[in-house]
Amino acid sequence: MNVGIMGCSGYAGRQLLNILVMHKKVSLKALSSNTYAGKEAKNIFKLSQYTGQLVIDSDVEFLNKATLCDVIFLALPHKTSMANTRKLLKLNSRLRIIDLSADYRFKDSMVYEKWYDCIHQDKENLDNSCYGLTEMNREKLSDTKIVGNPGCYPTSVLLGLLPILSFENLDLNSIIVDSKSGYTGAGVKPESYKMLAEGIDNVYPYGGTEHRHVGEIENTIEKITQTKAFIQFIPNLIPVKRGIITNIYINMKVKMTYSEVLSQYRTYYAKEKFVIVHDEIPKLSWSVGTNNCHIGLLVDERTNRIIVTTTIDNLIKGASGQAVQNMNVMFGFDEDEGLKYINQNI
Amino acid sequence: MNVGIMGCSGYAGRQLLNILVMHKKVSLKALSSNTYAGKEAKNIFKLSQYTGQLVIDSDVEFLNKATLCDVIFLALPHKTSMANTRKLLKLNSRLRIIDLSADYRFKDSMVYEKWYDCIHQDKENLDNSCYGLTEMNREKLSDTKIVGNPGCYPTSVLLGLLPILSFENLDLNSIIVDSKSGYTGAGVKPESYKMLAEGIDNVYPYGGTEHRHVGEIENTIEKITQTKAFIQFIPNLIPVKRGIITNIYINMKVKMTYSEVLSQYRTYYAKEKFVIVHDEIPKLSWSVGTNNCHIGLLVDERTNRIIVTTTIDNLIKGASGQAVQNMNVMFGFDEDEGLKYINQNI
Amino acid sequence: MNVGIMGCSGYAGRQLLNILVMHKKVSLKALSSNTYAGKEAKNIFKLSQYTGQLVIDSDVEFLNKATLCDVIFLALPHKTSMANTRKLLKLNSRLRIIDLSADYRFKDSMVYEKWYDCIHQDKENLDNSCYGLTEMNREKLSDTKIVGNPGCYPTSVLLGLLPILSFENLDLNSIIVDSKSGYTGAGVKPESYKMLAEGIDNVYPYGGTEHRHVGEIENTIEKITQTKAFIQFIPNLIPVKRGIITNIYINMKVKMTYSEVLSQYRTYYAKEKFVIVHDEIPKLSWSVGTNNCHIGLLVDERTNRIIVTTTIDNLIKGASGQAVQNMNVMFGFDEDEGLKYINQNI
Amino acid sequence: MNVGIMGCSGYAGRQLLNILVMHKKVSLKALSSNTYAGKEAKNIFKLSQYTGQLVIDSDVEFLNKATLCDVIFLALPHKTSMANTRKLLKLNSRLRIIDLSADYRFKDSMVYEKWYDCIHQDKENLDNSCYGLTEMNREKLSDTKIVGNPGCYPTSVLLGLLPILSFENLDLNSIIVDSKSGYTGAGVKPESYKMLAEGIDNVYPYGGTEHRHVGEIENTIEKITQTKAFIQFIPNLIPVKRGIITNIYINMKVKMTYSEVLSQYRTYYAKEKFVIVHDEIPKLSWSVGTNNCHIGLLVDERTNRIIVTTTIDNLIKGASGQAVQNMNVMFGFDEDEGLKYINQNI
Repeated sequence: MNVGIMGCSGYAGRQLLNILVMHKKVSLKALSSNTYAGKEAKNIFKLSQYTGQLVIDSDVEFLNKATLCDVIFLALPHKTSMANTRKLLKLNSRLRIIDLSADYRFKDSMVYEKWYDCIHQDKENLDNSCYGLTEMNREKLSDTKIVGNPGCYPTSVLLGLLPILSFENLDLNSIIVDSKSGYTGAGVKPESYKMLAEGIDNVYPYGGTEHRHVGEIENTIEKITQTKAFIQFIPNLIPVKRGIITNIYINMKVKMTYSEVLSQYRTYYAKEKFVIVHDEIPKLSWSVGTNNCHIGLLVDERTNRIIVTTTIDNLIKGASGQAVQNMNVMFGFDEDEGLKYINQNI
Repeated sequence: MNVGIMGCSGYAGRQLLNILVMHKKVSLKALSSNTYAGKEAKNIFKLSQYTGQLVIDSDVEFLNKATLCDVIFLALPHKTSMANTRKLLKLNSRLRIIDLSADYRFKDSMVYEKWYDCIHQDKENLDNSCYGLTEMNREKLSDTKIVGNPGCYPTSVLLGLLPILSFENLDLNSIIVDSKSGYTGAGVKPESYKMLAEGIDNVYPYGGTEHRHVGEIENTIEKITQTKAFIQFIPNLIPVKRGIITNIYINMKVKMTYSEVLSQYRTYYAKEKFVIVHDEIPKLSWSVGTNNCHIGLLVDERTNRIIVTTTIDNLIKGASGQAVQNMNVMFGFDEDEGLKYINQNI
Repeated sequence: MNVGIMGCSGYAGRQLLNILVMHKKVSLKALSSNTYAGKEAKNIFKLSQYTGQLVIDSDVEFLNKATLCDVIFLALPHKTSMANTRKLLKLNSRLRIIDLSADYRFKDSMVYEKWYDCIHQDKENLDNSCYGLTEMNREKLSDTKIVGNPGCYPTSVLLGLLPILSFENLDLNSIIVDSKSGYTGAGVKPESYKMLAEGIDNVYPYGGTEHRHVGEIENTIEKITQTKAFIQFIPNLIPVKRGIITNIYINMKVKMTYSEVLSQYRTYYAKEKFVIVHDEIPKLSWSVGTNNCHIGLLVDERTNRIIVTTTIDNLIKGASGQAVQNMNVMFGFDEDEGLKYINQNI
Repeated sequence: MNVGIMGCSGYAGRQLLNILVMHKKVSLKALSSNTYAGKEAKNIFKLSQYTGQLVIDSDVEFLNKATLCDVIFLALPHKTSMANTRKLLKLNSRLRIIDLSADYRFKDSMVYEKWYDCIHQDKENLDNSCYGLTEMNREKLSDTKIVGNPGCYPTSVLLGLLPILSFENLDLNSIIVDSKSGYTGAGVKPESYKMLAEGIDNVYPYGGTEHRHVGEIENTIEKITQTKAFIQFIPNLIPVKRGIITNIYINMKVKMTYSEVLSQYRTYYAKEKFVIVHDEIPKLSWSVGTNNCHIGLLVDERTNRIIVTTTIDNLIKGASGQAVQNMNVMFGFDEDEGLKYINQNI
């Protein structure tokens, strides 16, 4: 199958490239990066084991290669994917798109426009899109045209909530999320707060009360529960390169025991390859370098609260790994093809 | 004034020593450490600017020096300070004690015994003790015999709550605390989870639902509000050396605006030298190496919640710095003597 | 092919396990660790993608499984491999051994005994052993019985020297090596200097003038050049988890240009899959998580010196990856089987 | 005494400000930073213990305040200090200048112009300048007009060499320096290689064979030895915030013992407050946050080499601390005034 990546110089694009060069079913046909156009991918990205000789295109040149591809991944900034998707699908109507930006994460363009403060430029294709949280939408993905690949924080939050969202017992408005993310989550653009000298002995909560990911989380919870809920979400930058660890606090209306809650999680994820429920609290490092989401639970009988801890690698399960997982589902490959190798969690 | 430190090989003891050698009103008379007994303090602790020639005693030898001292700091493990305090006060009844362990943090020995799972060995002296959160108990400290110096996490939580605890408007049972601490908080004893190779790319929540500090936090809230409240408290180890950053989430019963809440904090701490209220969210690094607690606020009108972020240096305001601040109050020195120099927050 | 690992709880053993579970030609038959005996490997080592159900043996139990195996990796402490090797080969004479300790790195037991200050307990098998620096001894490895897998520092130094050691032009006694290593190189045993709180803002040179690896480096240089040379080698611990970066300084007797030296390196490693010569100085991160050694060069015409910089992952090319590479050579598999997947150098 | 700082938004300027606000003899009259002009210094730089209300000027406004000051520190980029110095001295001829850039480090403008590839714009004042390595030039500093404060790397190298440079026994052309520096050494300007996500698991040698500091080191060695020597100098960025640790390798012509060399260092630095010679190898952390240079030695009898390890804080002894030390010498204050407080090396 022929694959292209538009935007390979960001962290997610580079990670995606690293995964796809190991994928057995994939032939890489085109790559773009305005930064590196004209250079050979193998050299720029230190792909020592890659034997291909792909030369990087500019974004404009890349569009011409749409006809060569069966699927294209977009690892572009928010708000730039939608126009490119429209163009690509005009050039090649059988093409399928996996978009790592936020542009196709909301079926309802008005919700998107509210949180991203812009006009959606490809409303007609929203109907052909699907939110790409694989464990939630696996069925729908197989025949979707466009995948809106989830954000890294929402992935870490929603995988921690899916097994219990259908409980009548939860007070949805009580959900508080305290997430900690490494610096690749902040992107490649040099900015003062991302410098090592500023961050290495530092931690900071950011984003105020209305971080964009709140919209994505609330929207998905509403889809599942048919209830409008207000979520508290505070992201914190911590001095690591990769990974997100999330603590989710939820009030129960009626007491449940730890083993009842644990059992619910185990049942829900019993057949999943990339979500592992533990009877201990996971450490961030368990997920780093893998597509795995690890989950641990506390149930506090004093406060009547469930506390869910999840860990993911923000660039893999939180971005490129989940994108490849979605591709595998869309095209009927083994769901872990290309992803089973990245398992170096020492 | 003559001062001794019992237990100077731990991180808090070493930090205390570093502060006291710069303190204008203090003459250091005795130091103990079973690890380093017989060695010269200047060499062991790289006190390059210290001109004294103090030799470190064993804990047993140290007791004999009680008669030389006006005040003794105990930087000993929990559960070992109480017996030593009793001995010291028998040897020198005019002595005052500042204990960095948990042994004198609870006036009610039963509460102590419940959270620390042991018998209190110096109940008679609990009446002469005072909980040493300086900003809360300044008045009482001036004529106390024994200070129970607060834990590092409780300091970061309680300073964030003090200005609003008297609000009828708060739902005290809604308080959720998500704290992140550096590794000096875990002590000097080598253990697997504290190793650099395990921790440097890692984060982990620990302590389950009933970390001991919950008792200290709840006990103090109850003292102030006369209400029994259940607090959720999750500490997380993060890969930094020093510092605690704490996010506190609290539900309001009735809406308040950001400026109303901010104004309450500013008023409450207006005269404090070591608590600074900002109109932005503080970064952990602002507190590292200083005795300062920085506080920032969010008020979320969607969820009707206050989110307080506090930062402290766990070894200074969270331990030794506050201990010296307490000594300054007890003996009528300038409250920032010895502490104003440690201000290297670049 | 049936494989066993003796000693899988150290960092090298865990890395080896992670590589072997992805190796297409290998069936894992037995694992040992006194620490984890009786536990299931998949759980202990978070091998999420591993579908086997191997239970960990104690070292003693493991010996009984020698008859099941074609090759056994020993990831044991120095000085304990030799007795175990002798036992294993008595139990199964067709077995081949890849030893990650220093016990079979020296053909001459007297050299070993001098640097390791002990008696060699398996002298008769030294004749059947081969030093496992793959790029140097590939031919000999194919029919060796026992591989003495190189140390991590010596691998980083020798790969940087191999292409020019035959130059008459070098002043061998001028070689100075300044190496920087991450903390996994110091092993899993908790010790004070390895703690995060001690190391995260720290760097230190260690080992004095006669670090054991000097013996291994000098011994190999002597094998190749037939000349006794004295090497200066200073290792430094730096606050990273994995990787070694080495600067090697060598005086030339007669001037050579940068392009002459570069060309020599490129020719020498032209066919190698795991050694890449660049026309820039490599960064440590290029090697982390991979079996690749990256090499860059400076030639200083002012001082008449070559400066070689090499990078490796201490646990992969510096230990387990090279061990698997050696197995692949010994058994005629593709040299990169099991190793081509670990390429996540973002 | 009235003091001004021109350029206080860089790391060295901020550190300088932190030191000067604690200095007993100093009244801070003016600060400049184009970035922060118009803002209050206390807020911008979180100077919690500072009670002054100094407002930051632009560089242009600052010049007008020259008449208020007795001494002005320039913490400006290389090549911009010389023109400003000329202007300042015209406005106030009794002013003394301490320049943290390279502009006054070379008495011979041609040497400066060669290494910095520009024309020196204040040649007439070079005669009134003095290289500010305090321990070397203390006598000359007391009546100098302009101090060329040393670079951070050269400070770490030269303090390690001073005690033995007069030995006939050294082969000066054999000197090899391998230095490791934290990221504050690379400055505040956001650039890709300085980002936390790029650097935290990384190390890299940089600067090629002719880093500018080679010129400063060679120039000073030549001043002392009257011999032209070629030095090898390789700086390496390591993932810490502050500090430089330097290994210096030097060949001896004739053997000397460890105790002979150690004794030479101890004698040379016997009266120094800020250089401490140890009989062990120092760790980087000993110097962090202090003005102290720690020195340790190895003498290798196999190779006939001395290996000197030095540690400094790049922003303190390597920049602002030494600048204040120089001011203290120039004005006859205690040499450690303002510097004795910064001693938090836990």
